[in-house]
Amino acid sequence: MTQAEASPYTFVVPDLSDDGLAAVTAEIASTATEYDRTGDLPWAGLEAAYRAGLLTATVGRQYGGPELGPKDTARILTALGEGDASVALIAANTLITHAGQAARPSWPTAYYDDLLRRSRTGPAPANAVRAEPELGAPARGGLPRTTVTRTADGWRLDGRKAYATGGAGLAYHVVWAVAVEPDGDPEKPRVGHVIVPGDLPGITWVPMWDHLGLRASNTHDVIYDNVELPADAFAEIPRGADGVYRDPAAAAGPGSFGHPALYIGVARAARSAFADYARTRIPAALGKPIAQTERIQAVAGEIDLQIAQAETLLYGALLRIEAGDTAFLPQLSAIKVAIARSVIAATQTAVAALGNPGLSRHNPLERHLRDALCIRVHPPQEDVVLLAGGRRVLSI
Amino acid sequence: MTQAEASPYTFVVPDLSDDGLAAVTAEIASTATEYDRTGDLPWAGLEAAYRAGLLTATVGRQYGGPELGPKDTARILTALGEGDASVALIAANTLITHAGQAARPSWPTAYYDDLLRRSRTGPAPANAVRAEPELGAPARGGLPRTTVTRTADGWRLDGRKAYATGGAGLAYHVVWAVAVEPDGDPEKPRVGHVIVPGDLPGITWVPMWDHLGLRASNTHDVIYDNVELPADAFAEIPRGADGVYRDPAAAAGPGSFGHPALYIGVARAARSAFADYARTRIPAALGKPIAQTERIQAVAGEIDLQIAQAETLLYGALLRIEAGDTAFLPQLSAIKVAIARSVIAATQTAVAALGNPGLSRHNPLERHLRDALCIRVHPPQEDVVLLAGGRRVLSI
Amino acid sequence: MTQAEASPYTFVVPDLSDDGLAAVTAEIASTATEYDRTGDLPWAGLEAAYRAGLLTATVGRQYGGPELGPKDTARILTALGEGDASVALIAANTLITHAGQAARPSWPTAYYDDLLRRSRTGPAPANAVRAEPELGAPARGGLPRTTVTRTADGWRLDGRKAYATGGAGLAYHVVWAVAVEPDGDPEKPRVGHVIVPGDLPGITWVPMWDHLGLRASNTHDVIYDNVELPADAFAEIPRGADGVYRDPAAAAGPGSFGHPALYIGVARAARSAFADYARTRIPAALGKPIAQTERIQAVAGEIDLQIAQAETLLYGALLRIEAGDTAFLPQLSAIKVAIARSVIAATQTAVAALGNPGLSRHNPLERHLRDALCIRVHPPQEDVVLLAGGRRVLSI
Amino acid sequence: MTQAEASPYTFVVPDLSDDGLAAVTAEIASTATEYDRTGDLPWAGLEAAYRAGLLTATVGRQYGGPELGPKDTARILTALGEGDASVALIAANTLITHAGQAARPSWPTAYYDDLLRRSRTGPAPANAVRAEPELGAPARGGLPRTTVTRTADGWRLDGRKAYATGGAGLAYHVVWAVAVEPDGDPEKPRVGHVIVPGDLPGITWVPMWDHLGLRASNTHDVIYDNVELPADAFAEIPRGADGVYRDPAAAAGPGSFGHPALYIGVARAARSAFADYARTRIPAALGKPIAQTERIQAVAGEIDLQIAQAETLLYGALLRIEAGDTAFLPQLSAIKVAIARSVIAATQTAVAALGNPGLSRHNPLERHLRDALCIRVHPPQEDVVLLAGGRRVLSI
Repeated sequence: MTQAEASPYTFVVPDLSDDGLAAVTAEIASTATEYDRTGDLPWAGLEAAYRAGLLTATVGRQYGGPELGPKDTARILTALGEGDASVALIAANTLITHAGQAARPSWPTAYYDDLLRRSRTGPAPANAVRAEPELGAPARGGLPRTTVTRTADGWRLDGRKAYATGGAGLAYHVVWAVAVEPDGDPEKPRVGHVIVPGDLPGITWVPMWDHLGLRASNTHDVIYDNVELPADAFAEIPRGADGVYRDPAAAAGPGSFGHPALYIGVARAARSAFADYARTRIPAALGKPIAQTERIQAVAGEIDLQIAQAETLLYGALLRIEAGDTAFLPQLSAIKVAIARSVIAATQTAVAALGNPGLSRHNPLERHLRDALCIRVHPPQEDVVLLAGGRRVLSI
Repeated sequence: MTQAEASPYTFVVPDLSDDGLAAVTAEIASTATEYDRTGDLPWAGLEAAYRAGLLTATVGRQYGGPELGPKDTARILTALGEGDASVALIAANTLITHAGQAARPSWPTAYYDDLLRRSRTGPAPANAVRAEPELGAPARGGLPRTTVTRTADGWRLDGRKAYATGGAGLAYHVVWAVAVEPDGDPEKPRVGHVIVPGDLPGITWVPMWDHLGLRASNTHDVIYDNVELPADAFAEIPRGADGVYRDPAAAAGPGSFGHPALYIGVARAARSAFADYARTRIPAALGKPIAQTERIQAVAGEIDLQIAQAETLLYGALLRIEAGDTAFLPQLSAIKVAIARSVIAATQTAVAALGNPGLSRHNPLERHLRDALCIRVHPPQEDVVLLAGGRRVLSI
Repeated sequence: MTQAEASPYTFVVPDLSDDGLAAVTAEIASTATEYDRTGDLPWAGLEAAYRAGLLTATVGRQYGGPELGPKDTARILTALGEGDASVALIAANTLITHAGQAARPSWPTAYYDDLLRRSRTGPAPANAVRAEPELGAPARGGLPRTTVTRTADGWRLDGRKAYATGGAGLAYHVVWAVAVEPDGDPEKPRVGHVIVPGDLPGITWVPMWDHLGLRASNTHDVIYDNVELPADAFAEIPRGADGVYRDPAAAAGPGSFGHPALYIGVARAARSAFADYARTRIPAALGKPIAQTERIQAVAGEIDLQIAQAETLLYGALLRIEAGDTAFLPQLSAIKVAIARSVIAATQTAVAALGNPGLSRHNPLERHLRDALCIRVHPPQEDVVLLAGGRRVLSI
Repeated sequence: MTQAEASPYTFVVPDLSDDGLAAVTAEIASTATEYDRTGDLPWAGLEAAYRAGLLTATVGRQYGGPELGPKDTARILTALGEGDASVALIAANTLITHAGQAARPSWPTAYYDDLLRRSRTGPAPANAVRAEPELGAPARGGLPRTTVTRTADGWRLDGRKAYATGGAGLAYHVVWAVAVEPDGDPEKPRVGHVIVPGDLPGITWVPMWDHLGLRASNTHDVIYDNVELPADAFAEIPRGADGVYRDPAAAAGPGSFGHPALYIGVARAARSAFADYARTRIPAALGKPIAQTERIQAVAGEIDLQIAQAETLLYGALLRIEAGDTAFLPQLSAIKVAIARSVIAATQTAVAALGNPGLSRHNPLERHLRDALCIRVHPPQEDVVLLAGGRRVLSI
């Protein structure tokens, strides 16, 4: 049996033309302000993404999906982020989950089949759930306190996680946990990911997310209390060469440019909002649109330069990887940091130039600034990247 | 009759000791988060400022007040801004109004007497109301559309103003308007300030203020429809040497450092919030407070450097003025811009270094960032300052 | 006759392996300090580049050359720039000249044949000579005063040019001039390039170049006085769509990344010099190399991030062009500006962190800083790029 | 006997009027380019400063001097630095030496009398000589290797020092050394300053100084070999509260703003050079001076803002000290760093905006950039300041 024959489902190849994506962006943007206000899960936006086939664009070909690669994924997430960053973040996590399963299948067959089935009829978000309130950023090291305990016929999950984007909307959680096993070594327990259906008993959401940006992303805390799971729900993560477990998200690879891509969408939205305002604002004392002044033109040029930089870094990195340029791979994390700086610079430049109109909630720029600032919360953190890069350069 | 004898009121000299001001800061800070949420007028904070004598600290000695000068005013506003920026902004406008009247009395006697009377029993905010929706920033030039029309026994005020901080809480408005007079020159009408009691018929507030920061400042629009005023309510503003009217707020003088001072308070609050977090945050993977890492120490040092810069610019400018150093007066606006950059840099540096904890509304840093970004909306605008300074340097 | 058969010469395909290029870099670097001191033409460095086949790497296949493309050219120039920026600048101009002739042959056959012949036995630099002392940057528009006058049997060249890199070492000049023709329109003269052998009578060099950086590049002024040329020495440059002549160098295309590439080499040299110093400097008070401090590691990481950014922008732009991504082509100039910022940031960061050792001529960093700052003098200028980009964004 | 009576000398109170100082600036500037080329000791400039009474402006009143304070010293050094930074640096060290002796006399009477005598007839530079090649920056801690050994009738000085500004032009050296004494504790030797006439046998200059900037400052190495000194030539420096010796120069006090002041002069010279160029440069394509473009005006405004910032930080800090504002004293070092940033920003902004004309040695801007970058080499170093400030803020 070939894998292609095996899949009972077929997922559409999405329309990634500029016009096709722009239509999705516009539809999602139309509800973004309201979700930002209420903090509700952005279902209308997610459904628009679903209808366009964007939430399943990375489903593996062995599962009947288009298995689009990092460049197409980046384009999708930029388009979504330009519409609603919260929608895009939930989508990014879902696309990364599908891409991971396509490349290295590790889910219980029944669970992934269920996820695919639900993905055919509506948004079915999935996400890795790694952070813990006391742990600090997983990317900085340290083991989770959340445990998955071996039982007679499976596992039992207990613990509290933080920053679980998607909240109660998640169809599946991929939970980072320490295994408690009868034959395990308590000094060196196994660590891995547990696949958890979002609707199991024992899962309680704690609505902690009340943030400057990405307000509709529902990045809440979640408590697992005696959640029962089958035996194949646990997949070990291999230790690093130094014997230390590390959050896989801490290592930048081609699949890790989804988050930067969505924030580039935010910066593009900020550029549009700036241009719209500048073209229509005619102060009585000036008598013409401010867009006709050299100052505003130079500001728009700076915003555009930062976006051109971010996009060329993003696609340039992916193209260099494709071209087999391995020498720069240790710099991938630095490039992600550089993209973050550009996204924030683009958005802050737009806001700084407009005074009150850039800060008022009557204009979209204010939301774009709040969303853009969230790019820094995704690993890798800048200080870690600079130290690692410096040690490499110094051969320390 | 000496002026001191003339005043029926006596206003207390406030306690400006470090401890005295810190107590007011703490009291005001205790309600700041809630007002930021609701957007209500921050009466509890204003009342604390009132009880400490801070809202009347600049009332002229001829009116029984302490007539504190710019340096003391700056200290007061920094203390208030460190507690609640919205309270401080309303207070700043009130203190500037009193200081103006002390130096160049222009109010109708009955009105100012009424303002003082009300200032003895509670907060009695007053503010200049200059901006108009279509005009753009008054500091950039242009005449208001709001008119004050000569009537048989006084004036009639009509128009719509924007960005009137204090909103319905204002005891008095000082409204910038064009005079329509029977013997006036329609080509070159007089322009001036009209003193308007806040409770007159014909005044309608339009709740436009919905902003990233200073959410409780109630900086709404206001409509004047047929508001009747006495004959002495209008005071002309002299034209500049070039025959052009300019918003007095556009020219930086010693009295114009109140706004920068309050935002320095915001930056100080951000520094404290950063330090508090850093001292108490102990990631499991680190095993000690992050304050003990060189990285966090260097960040705290950078925040402190920016605040030291802002404060030394502020007090340095005031001390240079006092010392009779007139050569640098054309650079006063540039110094205000430099203070704004430092305040924003201090706050953004704190937020950028912390990731999620810097952006979550569970910590105060998030509010301080939003408030600090508002410093740019106060004149003078950076681009105007740079062009003016450049022309001076170039002798163009 | 096919073109390949036509060429009497064959030029070696250079060894572009990392090791091969590193060897050339090292050889060129060994004389860079001395040429920087004397300002002499860097013949030893040029000869090393010649021997490695790097000066003819872009000679067209129809002329027996390898006709390497923009990415390989960039690698070559980065390697040369890492060794000696003056060598690299002369090489860049030569490679661009050959690449232009490969793509759009316009030289007199005898002249190009002569250039190729001389390129087989040693360095034969060629360069476009466009700027004029009074004109300002050609990229900003304006016609040259240098004239090429129609004579009975050819042309006569007269005028003074500035910034002619390569100086008396140039085998050929490509001179931007206005045509004076009997049947020409004096109001709308033709403008074009004149191919001029460097050893003709009437050419006088004026040693104006005395610069912070690139001191050995011999970017002097040159006077053409009655220089006689054959009829086919002149090739017109087409006017733009708006009827205006523009310096072709002002438009960023794939061929225009040679200059940025060489300065990336300078930044790489600065990174190496920083790392070498940090690894070997052991202050008595510290007792270990400063490379082992977090501060120096973070600085090295920042330098590396800036170089990673510059390189990914450079190769990313070229790869996006190759991939047919046309939408971003209007941003090419912005990307060149972004590379310039990164190169300067990398180098200034290294210098700023070291104090005296970064500024002393006993260490190479000082030269790298002086050379890196020269990247801004190459078109396009930042302010022009920002205005153009802004107008595009604003649809003005 | 009063101190005033005691002094056999009288030093003129210099003319510190704007015009008076401008005249000295102009005279010194007229030879600055040449000294920068040759690296010779700038005697013409020093003599101009001497004739204006500027080199003895801080001589104590007990020695017949005007004993001018920090603000006047700053004005003097800004004026000198605007003319020739090397002259100003030598002058700064001399003025600091005299100010130290005025406040805390520690020199052998005969030596200081000799210095004063020579100061009446010409420049008599003096300087602290602290750094050592292997020690690293004295401000970072560590004891010198240079020793002053107790002899039968005095001391013997041996060691090698680095960065001794003034070189062979120094009338007196103030050398930081460890005391070797028969009754000393070898584990905890005394450390102090030794006063050394510059013309004693055993002093050899090593011409190491070959620097990007301040090329005429003659900041060479010096070797002391068996230099014999009288018993009163040594004065101990007290250990800090933690038992550690520290370079007094590492602690910022009011007397430590001389170095920043001179570099502000460099920035002012850069501003003038920028303005001069912009007013006279008329590109053919523009048809008017570039000073008439908004871009150049905004650049000039930014340069002026940075200078206004630097000057207000400098005088603001001194005025705050005078006003008894002790709370900010721990931030003095941070303010010096902030001044350094402003000076460099002003100068780099000017250079960056002009392209080749900003980098060519035909214009003075190039020298001003090289000189301005040297401000960072003076203690306190930025990273040390940020860490210390951060620890204070964090109460670590």
